[in-house]
Parts: sequence; C-alpha cells; structure tokens
Amino acid sequence: MRFANVSGRAALLIGDGAVDVEKASDGRFRADPQAVYEVWDEFRTWAAGVGAEEAIPFDAGSLEAPAPAPAQVFAIGLNYSDHAAESDFEAPSQFPPVFTKFRTSLAGACTTVELPPGGKVDWEVELVAVLGRRAHRVSADEAWSCVAGLAVGQDISERVSQLAGPAPQFSLGKSFPGFAPFGPWLVTVDEFDDPDDIEIGCSLDGEVLQHGRTGDLLFSVPRLIEGLSRVTPLLPGDVIFTGTPSGVGLGRVPQRFLQPGDELVSFARGIGELRQRFVQA
Amino acid sequence: MRFANVSGRAALLIGDGAVDVEKASDGRFRADPQAVYEVWDEFRTWAAGVGAEEAIPFDAGSLEAPAPAPAQVFAIGLNYSDHAAESDFEAPSQFPPVFTKFRTSLAGACTTVELPPGGKVDWEVELVAVLGRRAHRVSADEAWSCVAGLAVGQDISERVSQLAGPAPQFSLGKSFPGFAPFGPWLVTVDEFDDPDDIEIGCSLDGEVLQHGRTGDLLFSVPRLIEGLSRVTPLLPGDVIFTGTPSGVGLGRVPQRFLQPGDELVSFARGIGELRQRFVQA
Repeated sequence: MRFANVSGRAALLIGDGAVDVEKASDGRFRADPQAVYEVWDEFRTWAAGVGAEEAIPFDAGSLEAPAPAPAQVFAIGLNYSDHAAESDFEAPSQFPPVFTKFRTSLAGACTTVELPPGGKVDWEVELVAVLGRRAHRVSADEAWSCVAGLAVGQDISERVSQLAGPAPQFSLGKSFPGFAPFGPWLVTVDEFDDPDDIEIGCSLDGEVLQHGRTGDLLFSVPRLIEGLSRVTPLLPGDVIFTGTPSGVGLGRVPQRFLQPGDELVSFARGIGELRQRFVQA
Repeated sequence: MRFANVSGRAALLIGDGAVDVEKASDGRFRADPQAVYEVWDEFRTWAAGVGAEEAIPFDAGSLEAPAPAPAQVFAIGLNYSDHAAESDFEAPSQFPPVFTKFRTSLAGACTTVELPPGGKVDWEVELVAVLGRRAHRVSADEAWSCVAGLAVGQDISERVSQLAGPAPQFSLGKSFPGFAPFGPWLVTVDEFDDPDDIEIGCSLDGEVLQHGRTGDLLFSVPRLIEGLSRVTPLLPGDVIFTGTPSGVGLGRVPQRFLQPGDELVSFARGIGELRQRFVQA
C-alpha cells in the first residue's frame, strides 16, 4: 500500500490515482496526514477494502512530506562503513550518532531549495522510516511491526555550519528550510521482497553520485528502532532518516557541492524518486 | 503574567490561583496549552482583562510542561565560558553547538525521574525561552518581542550515551523520559527588571551545585534567536534550552552523578522552582 500527502491531505495511492482518505472514509479518518499515523492499524484495515474506482489523477508536484509534522525526527550519522571512512570518522561500534532535522526542514518530493549564502551544501540520500505505532523498549525482532512504511529522503547538509565550533552538532546545519525532503509517498513494509535490503541512490543532472543498499547499513532499521526506543519512546508518525552511503561531496577529491541550477534526483527501488532543484538564496 | 499547564489545560495564574483559559474565555482559546502560543498576542490582550476573582486553587504537582508539544526543541551547548572550561571544550566563538531534546523527554515541574541502568546522570540548570511568534531571520533587536515567556529548566544528561561514539551528538543521551523538565510556569518578559540577567541555580538536598546569571551567557537569548532563526524558522510554542553554567557533575573532581533518592531543586529568580526526585529504573 502507498500512503501520500497530496496538497496537505491524506491520500491512498492506487495505480496512477489518489483516493482522498477523509472523503472516501466519510470522515472516519482525518484529512491531516499526520493524524492518520495515530490510528495506523485501523487505517490499514480500512484501506485494504478501498477500490481503484475511487482513485482520481493527481499532480506529482502536489506531493508533500508523507509525515509533515512528526513529534520527533531522528537522523542517523555514519551508518555505512564506506561513508564513515570518506568522512574521516571511525565506524560506530555500539550505536551510531543520533541528531535531528528540525521540523521546518521537512519537505515533499519535488521542490526548489535555496542554497544559503556562503554555504557548502551537500547531498545524502537515505532510506526513511515512519513509525505506525508507539515503540518503547522494543526488540529488533518486533521493530518492523512498528513501522508504517518507508520512503526515500535526502539529508541535505550545509557543511560549514554542520562542522563548525568546538563540539560539532549536526542538527542545525542540516535543517535549513527544505533540507529534509522525503517521499514521494510511503510504501508499507509488506510491499518489499526484503525490507532490509533496498537499493538507494542519487544523481545530479544524470551523473550517479551515490549508490548503495540498505543491506549494508551498520545498524539496520530494526536495530535503530531497538536502540532509539531503549532511550526515548518513539511515537506514531515519528520519522527516522537512517543514514547515507558513500559518495557525498564532502568526501570527494576535490570536494564538490551543490550549485544553483543543479537538479538532484534521489531514488529508492520499490518506492520512487525525489527531485530537488537548487537556487541561490 | 504567568501562563501554566495545569493537568494538561492552559491556565492563567493570578496570585495563588489558576484561571482555566478555555472556560474563562468561553472557548475563545483552546484548553491545549500548546495551541495558545499560536494566538499568543491575542491571548495576552485577553488575559490582561481577567480578574483574580476567577482564580481557583491548584496543586503544584499538577503543573505540566508549559509548552508540552513544541514543533521544535532547541538546546544549546557550551554557552557559559566557565562551563565550557569545566567540560574541556573551547568556548564557541561564532555560534554555540545546537542539539535537541526529543519531545518525549519534556516534563513538568515536580516529577520523579528514572535513572537508566549503567548511566551517569548529571544536572544542568538552564533558562528556557518559549516562542510566542514565528521568527525567521529576525535580528537580536527584534528577538525579545518573539518570546512568549521564560521558565527554568533542567537539561538532565546521561553522560555515557551523550559522549559515546566517533562523532558525539548530544541529543539522545539528554532525551530519556523526563530528562527535560521545565516550568513551573511561563513568566512573560515584561515581568523582569532585566530579562538578560536572571539568576539561576540548582541544589541537591540543600547543597548548592550550580549558581549563575544569564548575564554571563556567551550568546544571550536575543543572539540565540537571531542565530537559530537565520537557519530555521522558529515557530510559536518552540522551546529553547539556553545552556548551563558551571558546576555540573561531569566537571567535578571527583566526578559526581545523581543517585537514587536524590532530590534536585532548580530555580530561576523571578520565575520559580522545579523539583525532581530520582529513582533507579
């Protein structure tokens, strides 16, 4: 099943069309996509009975973040060994670094992103998981059952502010407006042959920049949920950016960053793709 | 003016009593304390006309976080030079480190907090500011007008997880349940002789642990808002933990951490105090 945020309204995608969730359910489910995660299991049961005849065409440009107002956004650093190496960090052994992308950075699939003046803006394609249940102290074995679905995301990163100061904290430099696009919609876990091994990548004007598989994650989605939920309860609709494979601009020789006019395309196999166009602020 | 969250309901405190905002306004303002920040200016105008005769007694134990569900929680590290020194970090020059305390760590004034097994749990008293307006790219001169009010907070910190791994990120180890108590209520900025110089401190079973003044902040509340809002729009009801002065347990010789049975009292002059009792998980 594919769940989407079409112009701010919860939608079920069937074939090439979208079913408006509030209208088709006669108000049983709210239009606010974020609210649907609170009743995800009930929603899925209802959604299974919705037919293609209720779907109408929609514009890809109207796809907003599938979880637009999460209580918590977790973002994971150094979760592929090749990316840790290119970043000149040791690979984490106990648990990877956890930061946040502040909510105002969340965005949809096809957007225009401003490059902050003086910044060095980099790409980081990632698999994104959205919670469909509260999860506190769950084991890795139980973790997939807490996931509503998966999306592809970009952890866009301004490297000057990310790495500045005596104790670098990643959150702020990764939270400029539009720096956390994800989508284009959410695909439920049952749609994947192997949800623990999904191909992801991104390209810039046709050139492949990153290409990896979530099978190479140092800490898989279930292990991330186990480790995060050992500390903080995860709430329905919470978002996890799971980390990026190698190929970022910071790790290249010479280094390379996004330029005005660039169009970045990010994909996850079995999910779909994002398109971000960059302009000077 | 003092604004509070009494058992999950927005309240105006007058003398020793509380006025229920939804009831007293005949539903013009919602009971959800978080929703009041969306219409803060209008709320303040209304609140100025409310009389003491509508206030009824309330129990201090029923005071919950005055902003219980902010879209964004910003927390600031190394913002007093004496604390940066005791933490073996250089003082920040351009801007201090920014992290988050995840929402599920927010709590009210008088609470019981579980000490995670194997953890080293430390205290960090801080001034907390809550936004009353959207603030994007505001100057320090305009910043105080964006603040709904101030509270005292504790940035309780589990040092083992905070400092672990190849690229320490502070957020997770500071986000165990109840690790971000603040309150006991919000005091509006006009109530202070000098909102840029407020005395704060904390004590453990009568022994003073930390004692400082926000006049010694390396980056004042207005400069924090200026710097944060240069990157991310701040939203009404967003919360900023502004940093802690010296005296934390990690910086002591020998180091000292919270023990089961300890009662930590934190205060800000002109605001009030918090009481946290610690128990073994």
